[in-house]
Parts: sequence; structure tokens; C-alpha cells
Amino acid sequence: MISLDEAIKLVTENVRTLQTVRANLDDALGCASANDIRAQYPNPRFDNSQMDGYAVIAGDLAGASRANPATLEVIEDLPAGKISQKKLGGGQAIRIMTGAPLPHGADSVVAVEDTERASNSVKIFHAPSKGEFVRFGGEDIKISETIIGKGKMIAPPEILALASQGIDEIDVVRRPKIAVIATGDELTTPGQQIKEGCIYNGSSSLLVALVKSAGGVAFDLGIARDDSKAIAEKLCEGLGFDMIVMTGGVSAGDYDLNRGVLEKMGWKESFWRVAIRPGKPLAFGTLEGKPVFGMPGNPISTMTAFELFVYPAIKKMMGSLEADSRRLCAKLAGDVERDKEREQLLLADLKFENGAALVTAHGPQSSAHLKPALSANCLARIPSGDGRQPAGSSVEIWSLTKNY
Amino acid sequence: MISLDEAIKLVTENVRTLQTVRANLDDALGCASANDIRAQYPNPRFDNSQMDGYAVIAGDLAGASRANPATLEVIEDLPAGKISQKKLGGGQAIRIMTGAPLPHGADSVVAVEDTERASNSVKIFHAPSKGEFVRFGGEDIKISETIIGKGKMIAPPEILALASQGIDEIDVVRRPKIAVIATGDELTTPGQQIKEGCIYNGSSSLLVALVKSAGGVAFDLGIARDDSKAIAEKLCEGLGFDMIVMTGGVSAGDYDLNRGVLEKMGWKESFWRVAIRPGKPLAFGTLEGKPVFGMPGNPISTMTAFELFVYPAIKKMMGSLEADSRRLCAKLAGDVERDKEREQLLLADLKFENGAALVTAHGPQSSAHLKPALSANCLARIPSGDGRQPAGSSVEIWSLTKNY
Repeated sequence: MISLDEAIKLVTENVRTLQTVRANLDDALGCASANDIRAQYPNPRFDNSQMDGYAVIAGDLAGASRANPATLEVIEDLPAGKISQKKLGGGQAIRIMTGAPLPHGADSVVAVEDTERASNSVKIFHAPSKGEFVRFGGEDIKISETIIGKGKMIAPPEILALASQGIDEIDVVRRPKIAVIATGDELTTPGQQIKEGCIYNGSSSLLVALVKSAGGVAFDLGIARDDSKAIAEKLCEGLGFDMIVMTGGVSAGDYDLNRGVLEKMGWKESFWRVAIRPGKPLAFGTLEGKPVFGMPGNPISTMTAFELFVYPAIKKMMGSLEADSRRLCAKLAGDVERDKEREQLLLADLKFENGAALVTAHGPQSSAHLKPALSANCLARIPSGDGRQPAGSSVEIWSLTKNY
Repeated sequence: MISLDEAIKLVTENVRTLQTVRANLDDALGCASANDIRAQYPNPRFDNSQMDGYAVIAGDLAGASRANPATLEVIEDLPAGKISQKKLGGGQAIRIMTGAPLPHGADSVVAVEDTERASNSVKIFHAPSKGEFVRFGGEDIKISETIIGKGKMIAPPEILALASQGIDEIDVVRRPKIAVIATGDELTTPGQQIKEGCIYNGSSSLLVALVKSAGGVAFDLGIARDDSKAIAEKLCEGLGFDMIVMTGGVSAGDYDLNRGVLEKMGWKESFWRVAIRPGKPLAFGTLEGKPVFGMPGNPISTMTAFELFVYPAIKKMMGSLEADSRRLCAKLAGDVERDKEREQLLLADLKFENGAALVTAHGPQSSAHLKPALSANCLARIPSGDGRQPAGSSVEIWSLTKNY
């Protein structure tokens, strides 16, 4: 048995980042940038007005106030998107909208609220400082500055930055295609009649949902019966995808054939069994270079193993170089009994109270129980050892993968 | 000007939950359940074995140990999915796999590690308590118990619960179709040539990405020029959707026509201007019963207004009855200058340190600056007033909408 941290390391070492594809902004959302992307234009693009008002020369208006207004000649009314061909001289002003380029000669803007317009002139009630209400070109982003680093996930703010640069497509790392295989004679497909002693296959639907929520593209290859040939056929089919996630059949039971079949097919096993609870009977390796996960049979163990191992594998395949933002640290709200030999990953609730991140583990947990998963929002990592993990101690948590 | 809380209340009051559609599990992911969903079967479905081992009668094995093993007759080998037709009698055992139904007459399971098999008999090295390693039918979920409440968002754990019940489709509230309209003569579509004094339209791509990340379906209707007829035409087109989000043209400037056009078309304005910074010039109302947002022209203001107002509107349309899990409370890491009149929503970083949720506002912020949005993960809400909001004080935050 290896430790959780070793196992995570082995998984990410054995998974490769996929190829680059060209994507429009809509498709790029949720993918990682394949390159550093540099600014083609500064932001703001040019000196422009921060207010609706008048472009002026600050020096003309020293001492101006409501009691003692200054009067300027208005030489132009400038809407947004129109550029002035005129150069502002002493004693002159140009009517300007928010965002409009600052006319030549002007050095500041007076807000319309501090003015009173006559036909060709304007009274100014305020003495601006030089540069007041001007946004200077490049004050936010300079030309050829890196705006999005290689490996950054494209979220809405990145879409904004790209579109504002006039960019409508970029290179991203493609999303992995992931084959989901369930194994077991006892499994029945949801929606179909069920025989006594059988159970519905919840794991495949769960894995399809998890893969999708994590950014991959899932393909449900259905159920392989407990028969070496059937399992080998499904695995061969799975090799047409970027990764295989298989459930059931990796514990030490007599009818657990999957590992045997994988061995016969020549897989390179990285590890089998991890010192965690739940999720111990987890196998990981590569088959013809493709990563293959042999997940535990219990769906809750599968869910836990997905969050710990498959999620970072998907992110690496997607080219994400960002730290896993789901892994946080929180304060344990109550004592938790440790397991002597294995780290525990408990379904738990993360709450925020007065600036503290408090995590409460759900009551007695069994990997056969679904209800705790319906109200949990994270997994809390409880170290192995004697006695109890005390309330108030700091523990690592994984937020659960959701897509809303 | 109304307050942030009043404005959020008015938005959600004026938005209605959409119709119900039938969806398979794949399409249901990320939607809200339209009904309470009750268990058709208990979970576990039947008493079953928690281990690979032997189904036994605990009373037969009192005092059994390695030093003093008990021997039982093995009357059957039972794989998962096969149900025993036999009834266990005194002195008998049945070989059983994890998950297999507990045979009649058996009351506990001994793990295979605590046994030694001969051909028709097995030595048992452990005295189980009654019920040991048995998962009892219904101990997790009872028949007709509500497993998913109306308005619950369907995430991977809900998919698991449904599939485990054999359910392959449910009623969900459909996703809203949202029209995105940009307005302004100065705007150029990304990917096209740009003229001097113009800027690229970043807002439309931003809004499309935000709507998609929040669970809606976005339709980019392009740019309306600063002309009442053009704006009215786009709005008419937008009425074919469930909601309209329009950017630009709602401040007090002369060329800001949108509100005028909306008034002429007979919209019912709920509010215009909110006492927040950025995002003050925000208009909201309904046009022929459809919610319409008039967002500020600056994309960062638009992003902020989306998080505060459009996001909860989308969730209500989607039928979500859950609290907004993005609204948290964190401790301010450093002093922040207050604004005398308006609450501020500052781009900020939420970090977790030793169980504390710490939020750091980015440096000087302008709604024309994009860079702070590229590294922020939340908005921090700073109350209005004199002086500075002190470090260590508890503030509300909104996590930014991302889809990864």
C-alpha cells in the first residue's frame, strides 16, 4: 500500500498533456491556454475620458469654482467612437463622452455635473488637477505584456481580456476523451428491469457526470460482465480514448478479474491499493501508454477516488498548470476518530463563519451509503493514527467537483 | 439610487422560474430538480455483505480464534449478483463476495482473511458479533424517503443517487436562453479591423462566457449602433429569448439612448442606478414580461453587475431553491479605504490559511482595468462610510463564476 500523496504523484507523472487545438472563444472557455498570450494593444487603448464632461486644459481653470466659474469656448461635441481632428488651444473645451479619446491639447476632464452649457461656451465650476478623469493609454496593460500565461484556464475574465484585444480564437489544449467502463454480473442499467439480488449501476452515470464537470468528455462503454474476454473487449474499445476509468473488480475477491485481465494485456501497473479510507482497492497504470484507473466497486469510494486522482489527471491532460483550487485548508468543527492505518477522506460540509473556514464531517460513513454525499460539499482529510483528530485542528479539504 | 440588497431583491422578485422539461441524467446535470424525488427502493437494496468472506451464524462461532478455530460446512460459493436459494443452518457457511445478498439464515459475515478454506469446509479464526460486516437493507435510504428535494441542483452525487435507484430521466427546470446585446458606435467585433478611437467589444464575449458558466444558454445578438431604431430592433429580437442582457448606454450621457428606447417600448423599470462601485449605472426592468438588464458600459462593471444581479436571476429562472453558495464571509487581510456613498465590490483574492478564510483586495481598481480581474477569484463587499474598513473585519464575498 502506498500513501495518498505518493499515489497522486504517480498518477500525475504518468499522465501526459494532450495536443493543442485552435478554438474560438466560446470553445476555449474552460480549457487551458496552450501558449503565453501577449497584448497586441495597450489597455486602455488610448488616453480617454473617465467621465461624461468636457476635455480641458487644467492650467486654464486654476481657481475655478461655483462661486467663481471659468468660461471656455466649446469647439466640438464628441461622441464615443468619434475622434477629434482638432487641437485644443488655451481657453477652449470639447464636449466628451465616457470612453472617448482625449483630444490633442487637452490634459484633463471636468465632469458634466460641474459645468453649465450655453450654446458655444461652457461655464466650469471646478479646477481640475492635471490628468483628472483621464484614463491613460497602457496604464493597465502595456503592449506585448503577457496577459494570459501558458497553462492558465480560460474563465470569463480571460475571455474578456482576449476579446478586448480583438482576439477571437486561440490555441488551447484539447479536452480528454474518457472511456467509462463498469464491471460486474450484479449490475443493471438504470431504466431497465432489475432481478432479485442485483443492483443498479450508479457508478457509470456518476463517472460520466464527474468527468463532464471536471472538463473532460465522457464516453459510457456500458457494463462488462465478470468474464475475462468481456472485460478485455471493453478495455480494447477503451484504448480508442485518451483514458479509461473502470469500476469494480480490483479488490482481492475471487471474482475480481479486472487486474488479471489488465496484467495479461500487458499493462504497466503504477500502484494497487492506497492507504486511504474509502478507496483503498484502487489500481492505476498504463495500457499501451493510456492511463487506466481501476476504481473500487462502491460508488462512494469511486467518487472519492475520482476527486483525489482522476481530477488532477484530467487537469494535467488539459494542460492546466494552475494549482488545484479545490484543495483548501479548513478548521475541523468537531473531533473525528482516526483510523489507525489509513488516512480518511470524509464527506463533510465546509462553512464560513466570521472569517473562519469550518469543516464538519458527516456522521458515521460507509462507502455503501449515498445520503451523506447528497449534502456534503467537500472531502476532509483526516490523518491516520491513534485517538481522535481534535476539533480546531487544521485539515486539508477537497471541494467536490460540481458544475454549477 | 437604491441599495445593493434592495436591488438584488427586486431582480429576484421580477424573475420567474421557467418550465419543466424531461431530461436524461446527462442533460439533467447542472439543472434543478422540478419535483421532490422519492426513493423507489431502499439503499442498500437488501441485506448484503460488506466483505469478501463467509456468511455465517454468529451463534455458531462464540469463542472462535486463531488458537481455537471453529469449522463450518461450506454449502455454496456465491458470486456477486447471484442469490442463494439455500437457507443456512447451524454449523454451515456460504462463501460470499462484497455486495452479495446475505443468504437466508445467516446473520453476519467473517472476512476471508480470518478463514482457511478446505474443499467443503472452512476454518474460522474469529468470533463475529451478530450483524458484523452486514449492510442492512434501507439503513441508508428508506423506501419513499425524499432523496432529492424540489429545487436541488443536480450535481454528480445526485446523478449517482438517481442512477442507483434505476432512474434514467427526471423532470428538471429548463435552462434560460439569454440574449446578449452590446450597444455603442465605438465598438468593433473581435477579429475584425479596428479604426482609430474605437475599442473592441469585450463585453459580449464576457457575458456569453458568464451566462454559460452560470448555467444559461447565451445568444450573442451582436452590436447595436447608437441609434434608437437599431437599439429597438435588437430589443425586439431579444424578446424571442427568456432574458435580455444589454451593455452600454444607461449612464446619463447624451448618447446613452438605451433607457429612452426601453421607455418608449413600454418597459416596466424596477430600478436605475444602484449605490455600488463599480456598477452604479445599472438599469433593470421587464419588457413584455421579460427581464431586461441594462448593464454599465465598462466590462469590469458589467462583470460585477453580472455576479451580483444576473447570476441570481439565472438561478431563479433555473428553479434553484438553494442558497447562493458563492456568497461567503471572509476576513479582510488589509485595510481598505471606504467610499463615502457607495458600497464597493472589489476584485479580490480569497485564500485559506490555518483555517481562516482571508480576503485581500487588489490594489487601486478602475472599471477600465482588466488585469485585476485576471488574478482575482472573488469580489469583496466593502461597506460605504467614512475612513477605512479595518483589517481583520469580516466582509461578505462573492466567488467569481467560473466553469472549471
